[in-house]
Amino acid sequence: MTADRHLTEHTLSREELLKGHFLHVVRESVRLPDGGTATREYILHPGAVAIVPFTDDGRIVLERQYRHPTRRVIVEIPAGKLDPGESPLVCGQRELLEETGYVAREWAHAFTMYPTVAYSDEAIQIWFARGLTLKQAQLDHGEFLEVFTATPQEYLAWCRDGTIVDSKTLAAAAWIQNVLHGTWKLDWQALP
Amino acid sequence: MTADRHLTEHTLSREELLKGHFLHVVRESVRLPDGGTATREYILHPGAVAIVPFTDDGRIVLERQYRHPTRRVIVEIPAGKLDPGESPLVCGQRELLEETGYVAREWAHAFTMYPTVAYSDEAIQIWFARGLTLKQAQLDHGEFLEVFTATPQEYLAWCRDGTIVDSKTLAAAAWIQNVLHGTWKLDWQALP
Repeated sequence: MTADRHLTEHTLSREELLKGHFLHVVRESVRLPDGGTATREYILHPGAVAIVPFTDDGRIVLERQYRHPTRRVIVEIPAGKLDPGESPLVCGQRELLEETGYVAREWAHAFTMYPTVAYSDEAIQIWFARGLTLKQAQLDHGEFLEVFTATPQEYLAWCRDGTIVDSKTLAAAAWIQNVLHGTWKLDWQALP
Repeated sequence: MTADRHLTEHTLSREELLKGHFLHVVRESVRLPDGGTATREYILHPGAVAIVPFTDDGRIVLERQYRHPTRRVIVEIPAGKLDPGESPLVCGQRELLEETGYVAREWAHAFTMYPTVAYSDEAIQIWFARGLTLKQAQLDHGEFLEVFTATPQEYLAWCRDGTIVDSKTLAAAAWIQNVLHGTWKLDWQALP
């Protein structure tokens, strides 16, 4: 936007810094708003989908998973990376089934968030899901996690008391609270 | 915790993958809960502090900043990385002054979040601040941002309508809403 010309940076060149098994890092030279130059390093990421799944009795499906960088077991909503060419809704259905064993009949996109604007281009779409049926989880090799459910009241209490520390799970709290209070609306779509 | 032995991974070895100007990436070989091995790649980060600053008339101080990985101008609460050995409260005061020009008399730790549990050890402490006095911002070289204020109602509406997409700023929404409603309490400390 021309209105943001005083803030916007323009890419001059890109260099590959790392192509790991999992992480892809680039360094770019950028033109600053004042005409100077600077370097920016960040992770290229395919994007992800996270799901807030509600059971028919109003409980939220959550996971406990050891996350090695944090050296902790983390409470999270189910989530996973987009496969190449995959639509977010298909990704959400696939990850929900693979990780928790649930299939959901109705889906609604709530919001999109960037977890780390400073050093990753990852965007996570957060969807709500309901009308759940329990099938069979299909965890990836080397993936270990526990699935459990909590009431929205427990979920919010855990955001307050530090039990929940994961950004996507914390960010969903305002949505859960306001959707349940009827002040924020979701646009539900039923799957065929 | 012994209770989480069925989830926990143990580091076997570490390899430096990248030491860039800004990003530090390691690869670790880990022992999985079932005795197998896997590799984990992630960013080593010093940690950060973000601030929800309230003016005396109840408005929240925000920033608009171009974030190159996202190719967008992002609306954010003020934040910055911990300097070596720096306490989070001192970091919060320093970043608030440098980026916005404000000094705050009272501070309260609200919550801590991991923006990207899968590939960074970054933890962000989020503090509320009040009793603001406007001094002079001192932006770093190559840092361009706009400071503005919004009502809590505007802030929450922007979390709903997609204007706010930054994870720490979204995660603070539930805290802002519930602290203002008096249902969540903060433990304020006045600076000497």
